[in-house]
Amino acid sequence: MNRLKVLFHVNEAGRWPRVLLNAKNFINDVGRGQANIEILANGAGVAGYAPAAGTCGASAEGNDDGKILAEMKNLSDQGVVFAACRNALGMHAIAENSLPVFVMVVPAGITELAKKQAEGFAYIKQ
Amino acid sequence: MNRLKVLFHVNEAGRWPRVLLNAKNFINDVGRGQANIEILANGAGVAGYAPAAGTCGASAEGNDDGKILAEMKNLSDQGVVFAACRNALGMHAIAENSLPVFVMVVPAGITELAKKQAEGFAYIKQ
Amino acid sequence: MNRLKVLFHVNEAGRWPRVLLNAKNFINDVGRGQANIEILANGAGVAGYAPAAGTCGASAEGNDDGKILAEMKNLSDQGVVFAACRNALGMHAIAENSLPVFVMVVPAGITELAKKQAEGFAYIKQ
Repeated sequence: MNRLKVLFHVNEAGRWPRVLLNAKNFINDVGRGQANIEILANGAGVAGYAPAAGTCGASAEGNDDGKILAEMKNLSDQGVVFAACRNALGMHAIAENSLPVFVMVVPAGITELAKKQAEGFAYIKQ
Repeated sequence: MNRLKVLFHVNEAGRWPRVLLNAKNFINDVGRGQANIEILANGAGVAGYAPAAGTCGASAEGNDDGKILAEMKNLSDQGVVFAACRNALGMHAIAENSLPVFVMVVPAGITELAKKQAEGFAYIKQ
Repeated sequence: MNRLKVLFHVNEAGRWPRVLLNAKNFINDVGRGQANIEILANGAGVAGYAPAAGTCGASAEGNDDGKILAEMKNLSDQGVVFAACRNALGMHAIAENSLPVFVMVVPAGITELAKKQAEGFAYIKQ
């Protein structure tokens, strides 16, 4: 089989713990470096990149913002790509220069989702 | 790159503002007429086509039904295809002849989602 | 057109009534035996396979657990594949030997979702 390529779509901030766990379990299953993984956040999902904004994890995950960013960084170090939709950042008043350095900003999240699927990435919605 | 093809799936009425904004931003990004876009509603998503039924946007979007239909019409004029699942219309007691003229009714929403993906459409869940 | 292949993804227990109805309507539309259908549950979706655990359908679907399992069995008899993520079963303390006999356990749900899409299955999120 060809190398697996997976694209996770996050459009609600509360879904971050779930997507990070899924990415981690997926890597554990196929082996580090054995798959291409991208996580694209648009809509309210981008708040996960800016916990200081106070908009992420307002519910159950409320106190886990630092833990979430640490896990993102850990996955980034393993090759996972983190992307954010510029339109969504604007709507949520999140400055691009406030984002973690490993976050790639794309002009429009939907375009990124369409392009990656056209490149053979499997789409997984959280 | 080939022409992008995007299929949005809406199965909850409250997701309409989000999907319409995403379609609009996507067109702004790639250019009008540069991509094929279809929005397929099944389940409770079909209520978005029949605001008179009083079942759409019962929460925050409550007063925006007219605005939503106007935005649908605007996107339809730009080539976006709007489709509704016949099974879902029946379950929500929405008469087909009450739908906006630009809405295409398909026998089963899942078949439409499967066929379009087989034709190369990227799938995006709202 | 080639044979349709559809992969449903369920990651919340309350979505089971919806996915089972969608699978049923899909079969009614294309004809029994005319498509490949798999339903993959991960996250809290696996609770749908273990209603005795009391974690499925805690809300509106509360009294329908037996009905849900009967409908799963009925669809399984028609060739629908039911799969469960082993990681999710562990997190929800569901023993594999307590699952209905028609449920296939996969090591990681995300790997299954990626592989099936690579094989041409259309992805549908509930």
